[in-house]
Amino acid sequence: MDKIPILKMGHFLLITIQVDMHDRLAMTLQDDLTSRVVKDRAKGVLIDISSLEVVDSFMGRMLGNIAAMTRTLGAETVVVGMRPAVAITIVELGLSLESVRTALNVDKGMEILTALLETPVEADGHEHHPE
Amino acid sequence: MDKIPILKMGHFLLITIQVDMHDRLAMTLQDDLTSRVVKDRAKGVLIDISSLEVVDSFMGRMLGNIAAMTRTLGAETVVVGMRPAVAITIVELGLSLESVRTALNVDKGMEILTALLETPVEADGHEHHPE
Repeated sequence: MDKIPILKMGHFLLITIQVDMHDRLAMTLQDDLTSRVVKDRAKGVLIDISSLEVVDSFMGRMLGNIAAMTRTLGAETVVVGMRPAVAITIVELGLSLESVRTALNVDKGMEILTALLETPVEADGHEHHPE
Repeated sequence: MDKIPILKMGHFLLITIQVDMHDRLAMTLQDDLTSRVVKDRAKGVLIDISSLEVVDSFMGRMLGNIAAMTRTLGAETVVVGMRPAVAITIVELGLSLESVRTALNVDKGMEILTALLETPVEADGHEHHPE
């Protein structure tokens, strides 16, 4: 397995991580994903990690990096399907996933992305409140 | 890797096949998928095979079986993302994928499923039309 497929669904891209990531696979994913965000003009990225039974600091960092990279390109990332045991590990490891949005499943993740898409944003990157 | 994740998206289920299937994995997928179709009351199943560079007769038969099983449970299956080389192999191998619907990508597959969902079907075991 040398690359993880990226599926386009409307304005969003979906990635299902089914195997443990190693350095090269993570690099390829970052390259492919950032290219696809630009090529497909994607507004959001969903990363499903429901297959993962463990998340180590490498994986945690990778998810954070991907979220930061796609945000720079104008697309929000939502990590979906995290198992309870993985959430426990993430906190116990002290991994900061603060910059990463999470949702219970793909449907909920899609709702978050759609809501973000509909919220008008002001120039300095803040939400717009009509007076 | 001992199971392939099944993602729920609205009325549909999505499976991304990223690894070569062996007997046990295929069995597990059939079991999991049929259970999920019933549990989630799914109306359609999308199987993405864009990662697969080759499809052998085992895989071809498995796709046909899955389509037949889900149809029996009232859900249509669409295989999406087939590579040109795979399409060539399938014909050259003489694999009959007649019972399997295919589409270029997830978006197109979703369109087919949505259209099927909206098409009223006639009598024997079918939708009701108020007079």
